Amino acid sequence: MKSEIISVGSELLLGNTVNTNASFLSRKLAELGIDVFYHTVVGDNVYRLKTITKIALDRSDLIIYTGGLGPTEDDLTKEVVSETLGVDLELDNVHLAKIKKYFEKRNMKMTDNNIKQAYIIKDSKVLNNDIGTAPGVFFNWKDKKIILLPGPPTEMKTMFNNYTAPLLKQDSIIKSKTIRTMGIGESSLEELIKDLVIEQSNPTIATYAKQGQVEIQVTGKGKNEKEIDLIIDPLVKEIDKRLGEYIYSYNNESIEEVFFKQLKKNHMTVAFCESCTGGLVSSRFTAIPGASQVFERGIVTYTNNSKIEELNVKESTLKTYGAVSEETAKEMSIGLLNKTNVDMALSITGIAGPTGGTKDKPVGLVYIGLASKDKSYVIKNIFTGSRQDIQNKAANKVFVEGRKYLLEINN
Amino acid sequence: MKSEIISVGSELLLGNTVNTNASFLSRKLAELGIDVFYHTVVGDNVYRLKTITKIALDRSDLIIYTGGLGPTEDDLTKEVVSETLGVDLELDNVHLAKIKKYFEKRNMKMTDNNIKQAYIIKDSKVLNNDIGTAPGVFFNWKDKKIILLPGPPTEMKTMFNNYTAPLLKQDSIIKSKTIRTMGIGESSLEELIKDLVIEQSNPTIATYAKQGQVEIQVTGKGKNEKEIDLIIDPLVKEIDKRLGEYIYSYNNESIEEVFFKQLKKNHMTVAFCESCTGGLVSSRFTAIPGASQVFERGIVTYTNNSKIEELNVKESTLKTYGAVSEETAKEMSIGLLNKTNVDMALSITGIAGPTGGTKDKPVGLVYIGLASKDKSYVIKNIFTGSRQDIQNKAANKVFVEGRKYLLEINN
Repeated sequence: MKSEIISVGSELLLGNTVNTNASFLSRKLAELGIDVFYHTVVGDNVYRLKTITKIALDRSDLIIYTGGLGPTEDDLTKEVVSETLGVDLELDNVHLAKIKKYFEKRNMKMTDNNIKQAYIIKDSKVLNNDIGTAPGVFFNWKDKKIILLPGPPTEMKTMFNNYTAPLLKQDSIIKSKTIRTMGIGESSLEELIKDLVIEQSNPTIATYAKQGQVEIQVTGKGKNEKEIDLIIDPLVKEIDKRLGEYIYSYNNESIEEVFFKQLKKNHMTVAFCESCTGGLVSSRFTAIPGASQVFERGIVTYTNNSKIEELNVKESTLKTYGAVSEETAKEMSIGLLNKTNVDMALSITGIAGPTGGTKDKPVGLVYIGLASKDKSYVIKNIFTGSRQDIQNKAANKVFVEGRKYLLEINN
Repeated sequence: MKSEIISVGSELLLGNTVNTNASFLSRKLAELGIDVFYHTVVGDNVYRLKTITKIALDRSDLIIYTGGLGPTEDDLTKEVVSETLGVDLELDNVHLAKIKKYFEKRNMKMTDNNIKQAYIIKDSKVLNNDIGTAPGVFFNWKDKKIILLPGPPTEMKTMFNNYTAPLLKQDSIIKSKTIRTMGIGESSLEELIKDLVIEQSNPTIATYAKQGQVEIQVTGKGKNEKEIDLIIDPLVKEIDKRLGEYIYSYNNESIEEVFFKQLKKNHMTVAFCESCTGGLVSSRFTAIPGASQVFERGIVTYTNNSKIEELNVKESTLKTYGAVSEETAKEMSIGLLNKTNVDMALSITGIAGPTGGTKDKPVGLVYIGLASKDKSYVIKNIFTGSRQDIQNKAANKVFVEGRKYLLEINN
């Protein structure tokens, strides 16, 4: 089945919004074994949306629209599609009631505009919107399938996963395994598996570089998951043999998830104290559902005073070596360990920039301290990039170091 | 001038890469006063790239391609464009020398593939690549302008800014002002400014809903910034008159930046203690360069024990009312204020989900406490969406409430 994605919205053409909807849908369609041949973005304009629709009908079997289902004047996807295809819109009372309820629940006034959202293409299947007020639409037109989804990413994703994907199940499916690595560059990595990349057609291997990491995606096509696993697994084993030391995840898990699972397995608890990452480490860790099982506490000690009060860092240490130093990182992690009684305390102190760097202590210098009942040590790092890059890379490294410690004590 | 952007690359259609190139170019073209009417993404496929090119020639005056200029077999943008338009490719010796030098400098072996990159469309203007090996191309074809840029974002951006934008200077430019609001839905907001939206053609007004916020974008076209300001400013004033109470930013600033600036203006300091947001509030706040001027400390008290130890919350309060309660939120913020001696302490406790909710205390229930030397109070909220949505909306609300307090004491 040839498919294409049409994203409607002038904000995309102004560059204010990045089209993450198209990449989300592409990934999901690939998993379903459906080829995506085009993405198109078009503004909130009747003539151009009509033209694009005609082009799409000419070349694709499945057309998925996102955006333009809202209540305002410039939301016109449903109207233009119905006119171009010559199908009628009709008021759906079930959905009108749902929209009314949505507003009542939130104590908000429903405007006349919102009634527009309850108009549905005749004889179509309504796709529920669990989060917002705009329902989606699925219908067959001649030998084509047409799907209209809302623009806000959370609404669109929920609607696709819950109500759209089940309607698109194929005879053959695609399954990917993502292997995540750290500590090796993309070209060096590719050199090590080049022969595998060239040899394979099913499964295929692709590599992607992302913020200090390289991902390897192994994708197979087959009748069912079991059939695909049979061709993917030997290849993953071969990759593991060649790159094992750099791999931290085989399941598309983030480094913090891998660290979290390892802590859980070890029945150990953790606490973080952060200076230059300003809460990012705690925040990324607690974004994992169930983090509370292993996470005890996080402290963002931005001032010298808070480092002394919260973590018992010596004033003399701060004076002699400075807040960004091996000595301070060490005292921070030990102070946190003593205070919280966790199994592992991690500290981060550094210079995220853009200002504040010196010749001796440049922007990007970050010390990571680890303290446990057995030992404590500090790792010195120099990261590059913007303030945000440095904060992100430092947070990545905290999880890498935490995991490394766990792997070592398990051996 | 009608323009469109064609991004070439199968990785985009697989959803592994988000098309940030198209949004970057759209923003840049808008600033230059060039309208972008379409984005298209197409894979590394001769037939489909040819078809897309023909469609684009039919409807656009300026076509910008990104991607497919690399050295490998599947990089074929230059080849397909030259074939479709009937123009020749010829070896450019100046660029061949540059590519050779690039490899020598890096002590890398130049492969035969790289010679392919030195072939340029005849009679075109070569656009230098300061970062990589693939040169760009700019040429006129009949009454159209055609531009080929490389796919890697840093190469593309540098080439566009340094060598492409100067060739596209227009007589008129575009300038946008983004007004950000919170506390009002998109449809209610539009009701209040509907007449303005309909009346205007230059400047234009558009609204966008984003995670609990609505943005209003006012965009003007004119000879220079001054001329545009003259037509934008009165309209912004009118919008301010109607929506003032909901507006928190006129300069595309985030709510945390607005809160940060207000604190700085007031010479006040702040500290956060978080439960369900797990460090997100501190993390977002410290992502602002210079946050250390007003931010004293953040504490992530995930366990009951840490709430007692760090914030002096009474054990009896936790027992009687629970960790997610008005009482706990209040004691948290007061405890933090007493401990840190900041001017304002904000606390967050809630249920981010996906599990842990009950009938009385559902997922999404979040209490925000504010304590200052003068007063302390707690705001109860119910947020919807995923764990991440709830954490983000709660963090937004913390900054909104902090700012509201500052505005009140300033009045």
